[in-house]
Amino acid sequence: MTNQKTAVARLEAVATRAGQEYLEKEGFVQLFPPRLVRASGACENIDTLFSVSGNGQNRWWQDAAGNLLPAYLAQTGQLYLEAFVPSLKKVYCIGPSFRAEPKIDNRHLTEFTMTEIEFAGDFEDLLRYIENYLKAIARQLIDHESLALNDWGLTPADLTRLRSLPLALPRTTYDEAITILKNYDPQIAWGDDISTEHEKMLIKHFGNQPLFITRYPDPSWNHGQEIEVEKFFNMIPDPQNPGRVLSTDLILPFAGEAVGAAARIYDLETLKQRLTNSRMFKRLQEKGGTLDDFAWYIANLENTGSLPHAGCGFGMSRILQWLRASNNITECVTFPANRGNLI
Amino acid sequence: MTNQKTAVARLEAVATRAGQEYLEKEGFVQLFPPRLVRASGACENIDTLFSVSGNGQNRWWQDAAGNLLPAYLAQTGQLYLEAFVPSLKKVYCIGPSFRAEPKIDNRHLTEFTMTEIEFAGDFEDLLRYIENYLKAIARQLIDHESLALNDWGLTPADLTRLRSLPLALPRTTYDEAITILKNYDPQIAWGDDISTEHEKMLIKHFGNQPLFITRYPDPSWNHGQEIEVEKFFNMIPDPQNPGRVLSTDLILPFAGEAVGAAARIYDLETLKQRLTNSRMFKRLQEKGGTLDDFAWYIANLENTGSLPHAGCGFGMSRILQWLRASNNITECVTFPANRGNLI
Repeated sequence: MTNQKTAVARLEAVATRAGQEYLEKEGFVQLFPPRLVRASGACENIDTLFSVSGNGQNRWWQDAAGNLLPAYLAQTGQLYLEAFVPSLKKVYCIGPSFRAEPKIDNRHLTEFTMTEIEFAGDFEDLLRYIENYLKAIARQLIDHESLALNDWGLTPADLTRLRSLPLALPRTTYDEAITILKNYDPQIAWGDDISTEHEKMLIKHFGNQPLFITRYPDPSWNHGQEIEVEKFFNMIPDPQNPGRVLSTDLILPFAGEAVGAAARIYDLETLKQRLTNSRMFKRLQEKGGTLDDFAWYIANLENTGSLPHAGCGFGMSRILQWLRASNNITECVTFPANRGNLI
Repeated sequence: MTNQKTAVARLEAVATRAGQEYLEKEGFVQLFPPRLVRASGACENIDTLFSVSGNGQNRWWQDAAGNLLPAYLAQTGQLYLEAFVPSLKKVYCIGPSFRAEPKIDNRHLTEFTMTEIEFAGDFEDLLRYIENYLKAIARQLIDHESLALNDWGLTPADLTRLRSLPLALPRTTYDEAITILKNYDPQIAWGDDISTEHEKMLIKHFGNQPLFITRYPDPSWNHGQEIEVEKFFNMIPDPQNPGRVLSTDLILPFAGEAVGAAARIYDLETLKQRLTNSRMFKRLQEKGGTLDDFAWYIANLENTGSLPHAGCGFGMSRILQWLRASNNITECVTFPANRGNLI
């Protein structure tokens, strides 16, 4: 391997491990959720699910009643982690997230490492964990300057930038972000998605630091208009802001959205109602899916109940982009996988 | 979750982490190899490869020339790790290994966590790493007796058994093992696979401790007969024992084969010759595969060369079976996945 590739591998190892050590120190227990799953392993974008077949058969699996089932590659371990929050309180996993992303570009991968956490706690706890997770990684690099410069491929400017990380990261709500963006892009309207270009404007506006965008529109709320921005079905409504959910995305300089996070619904009936009314579920039904795809998750909630909890997924490759100040995700991970790079 | 399931999750976390800590202490660097791969992610048993499709298309990926390619789920990260041995010397990964195993039983899973290592070193180093990895896990449980008994679901008998782990684990060669087995099963012949029942006989014969079976028949050697036992193409021939390779399986009480290991071929021409003449490659060709499936691995070897190295994969679920003295693999992992249990 080239020196450059070796440095990429080393930094990926160091950053992922620094994050893991932080979580272990905080008492999180590592789980190993399945990656070959029903639709319960999908995030909101089920159109990018990969399908898997065994021995040439798409419906190779079977349920207890003998029905043949299709399987997908997991995009997230979230629901599997959530099931263990009542008993273990703080859980995490580190593993591949798969996306059938057709674009071959500098921003997307078909497979990337995601560190995910779920814990008993509230939205403020969640923001704190995300902030501290990021700082634990930056700290590890700052504290090993010589290795960072000589072995891990960072520049003095990278370390200077990491040292400037503010004690409290800037935060803006989705509503505020749209208002701010109107100064830069008069076309944008409330309800729109925040694009990569918009993310760049916001990052610059907030001083070129990681930025929390919080309280996105509630997908289950009647906004009196179609909204483009789409969030996962089990985000909890914000009691202070009708029509908004307690969610946040962390946007990083160079990388854009690197963390998706929310406080979760934990009441069974509310959850089922929000799931079956979600756009994601409607698309799943068009593909032949049913509520049965979530049978394990729902049965577990019925049996053991739940408690207030929250969680997020850290996209490690986007965090690595931020560490390296790189606009090209394929240069920041050891094995960049996309539709045009299968090895 | 039930208390039993919670204990299973905790032990899985503790054991996997104890193994990881051992590797980190020894200077191994964690890599994140792809799990969505060409046939270079297959072990010798390519019949149990899962196929993946994107957007309904089996050949969704494309190479540089525009040819459409099928993709599989990785059974091993071995070749990807090997590529980094010349530069990083000691590397490891922890992740899912996928097998389209049609049997729904107490021994097989369609997905399980595997910890894999590759390092610059020889066969004796390999045996030592395997032994010490296992001991590091046992040590962690012995040293936390109260947690082990109260939170991790072990019994006093389990801990007594782990305390009796001998300083040096027993070793037998494949040839010796067959000779010994003839005393218990007159039907067995040299060249046969060592079945689960045979493994049990050997374990008992060697004092109910983990057992190394070393120096399996070389698949590329003309033995003057068909041999059933099949090993991966890039195991290195044993210079002391013509027709044998420097490989070992670690057989565990209750669990059977838990670790597959070998010193690897590192000469490009020998490697290509052994690959293209392997039974695995012939089956791959029948499925439409070519040497191109290994293009990345071969190109890397051409560009950067290699050096004497060895490695292995630790099947974590089988190690957990051994820790718990369980004959049922599905009771030993948090999310047991098989053809009849897709969640």
